[in-house]
Amino acid sequence: MPELRKDPILGRWVIISVDRGKRPTDFTQHQQRKRGGFCPFCHGNEYTTPPEISAIRRDGSEPNTPGWSLRVMPNKFPALNPEGELKKKGEGLFDKMSGVGAHEIIVETPEHNLTLASISHDAFEDVLRTYYERLTALREDKRIKYVLIFKNEGESAGASLEHSHTQLIALPIVPRTVKDEIAGAKRHYELRDRCLFCDIIHQEKDDGRRVVLENDDYIALAPFAPRSPFETWIMPKSHYSAFSPLNGGPHNGGFKGLADIFQSVLNQLDRIFEFPAYNFMLHTSPFVDEQNDYYHWHIEIMPKLTKIAGFEWGSGFYINPTPPEDSARYMREVAL
Amino acid sequence: MPELRKDPILGRWVIISVDRGKRPTDFTQHQQRKRGGFCPFCHGNEYTTPPEISAIRRDGSEPNTPGWSLRVMPNKFPALNPEGELKKKGEGLFDKMSGVGAHEIIVETPEHNLTLASISHDAFEDVLRTYYERLTALREDKRIKYVLIFKNEGESAGASLEHSHTQLIALPIVPRTVKDEIAGAKRHYELRDRCLFCDIIHQEKDDGRRVVLENDDYIALAPFAPRSPFETWIMPKSHYSAFSPLNGGPHNGGFKGLADIFQSVLNQLDRIFEFPAYNFMLHTSPFVDEQNDYYHWHIEIMPKLTKIAGFEWGSGFYINPTPPEDSARYMREVAL
Repeated sequence: MPELRKDPILGRWVIISVDRGKRPTDFTQHQQRKRGGFCPFCHGNEYTTPPEISAIRRDGSEPNTPGWSLRVMPNKFPALNPEGELKKKGEGLFDKMSGVGAHEIIVETPEHNLTLASISHDAFEDVLRTYYERLTALREDKRIKYVLIFKNEGESAGASLEHSHTQLIALPIVPRTVKDEIAGAKRHYELRDRCLFCDIIHQEKDDGRRVVLENDDYIALAPFAPRSPFETWIMPKSHYSAFSPLNGGPHNGGFKGLADIFQSVLNQLDRIFEFPAYNFMLHTSPFVDEQNDYYHWHIEIMPKLTKIAGFEWGSGFYINPTPPEDSARYMREVAL
Repeated sequence: MPELRKDPILGRWVIISVDRGKRPTDFTQHQQRKRGGFCPFCHGNEYTTPPEISAIRRDGSEPNTPGWSLRVMPNKFPALNPEGELKKKGEGLFDKMSGVGAHEIIVETPEHNLTLASISHDAFEDVLRTYYERLTALREDKRIKYVLIFKNEGESAGASLEHSHTQLIALPIVPRTVKDEIAGAKRHYELRDRCLFCDIIHQEKDDGRRVVLENDDYIALAPFAPRSPFETWIMPKSHYSAFSPLNGGPHNGGFKGLADIFQSVLNQLDRIFEFPAYNFMLHTSPFVDEQNDYYHWHIEIMPKLTKIAGFEWGSGFYINPTPPEDSARYMREVAL
């Protein structure tokens, strides 16, 4: 079983593969993804993955056979393990716990050459509904404290397989970045009795320079202090603390409004950069406190245009060569 | 002038190039470094860089001419600007300040094909002495709160020029990562009246599994919860809070002991991975509180063997496929 270890200085957790550690020779110079090679996520190759957890099969086909339009399965090489008890242990100054959790793959389309930006609008809604359903299912497991949904698109953004897919990691602790966001939001709430994210949305709408796109229920913004050029956040315009069944699916309005704005932003990035590598992450309130007045769920989209180097590692600062006012303007210019 | 902006949620600072922002077309797919092309850091090309700040010239040659064995100059494209006043300003919910600071380049050798691992031992001592002298000089500027010395070796670690060099960024605020390390160290000190780093060194020496190398004054360790495979830290074995003139140069023993262990670790990595890309960062106490009982200066070396992807961005966790007990053993096996 993998091990979660805590850095005693920073309190930062890492997941260590203690069972089958990578030897030096396993780090061949960043293996190229085999283009045109065998793909475990294509129709007909279902037998090569762990058995599916769920799928959308409108033709009534059997599990683990072709016919699906979206498919969810456990990661074949999971970062965390769904079996076993959560055990915590000290080792002198050090803290560790067993790597209990889940690591799932959501294959968004059977078509090897489509991307999330180019699948049909209905298929995009299915993807969002699946995120929501997996979150809803995993919150029943009392060992799980948080579920992070994220995507790595393109090799330089960390994707090891070319076929478009989203990942989900369910964790036995609330991750540091989410904890830090909540702490910041709570500080603001204590001071002003208002949600910080709602305040940002109001201020940005009045200002206008960093607004990328807007529809009835959602807004896409370039954040004031983005880590990377063209970083874009998508948020519900009304206050919703969680992407969760407590808010309906989500917010009773279904997934259409979110699918509209999310797919538009991905298309805008594709038009500007010709299919850049990117990451996105969905941040929502932890299960233990899903409905609250201070946190606001959102999606952070980060195209991979710069590199993390010594300065970023050593300082926690980021150097961003494109002001968000500029990136939002470029994005608006290519909106359809 | 660049602008420092603070994220209102996380309190994280970013440096934004507001003057000459990069346009989308400036992000060509990760420009390859021109191998064999013109190099501004080679002998004879001194006129192409900003005038030198200092140099080691044992032949008595003139500044900004060939003849040097080590050369320090301002970065031609600085992240921060040495001229101007430090101005802080709010913008509704947002905070910003002028990007006052310094960004310097230390060219460690005139030989284009040498690396820090392969320069002579005397040259390595000169490099360390230069780090120390630049820190000593910059602490006189009262606008500067912290100086981060770091190196990006290899394109995938963020180096944009091939010729070996170290960078230094002087900041008008103490960076988040250093603040967080200090906060963790202070918590430990309040609880136990001992330096956390000293405690770690004692425990690791007793345990032995994560010790990479040791000499009279320094120890190299694989940290218990490393962010990346083969991450290695070098620390003085006695308690020294800063790499600073307060401790002599440093610790009165000169730079030989540190040069020995530092260059050995770089050579061990080269032998295992055949010249991997890597970053290192020197962490020391901020100028405002250089001599204290709780913090301990150290160097963090991180070979670039894995990629930062959506999970790391979204959680602040790292996934490390090589346990530090294994990496330390591999490192010991190739020690000369």
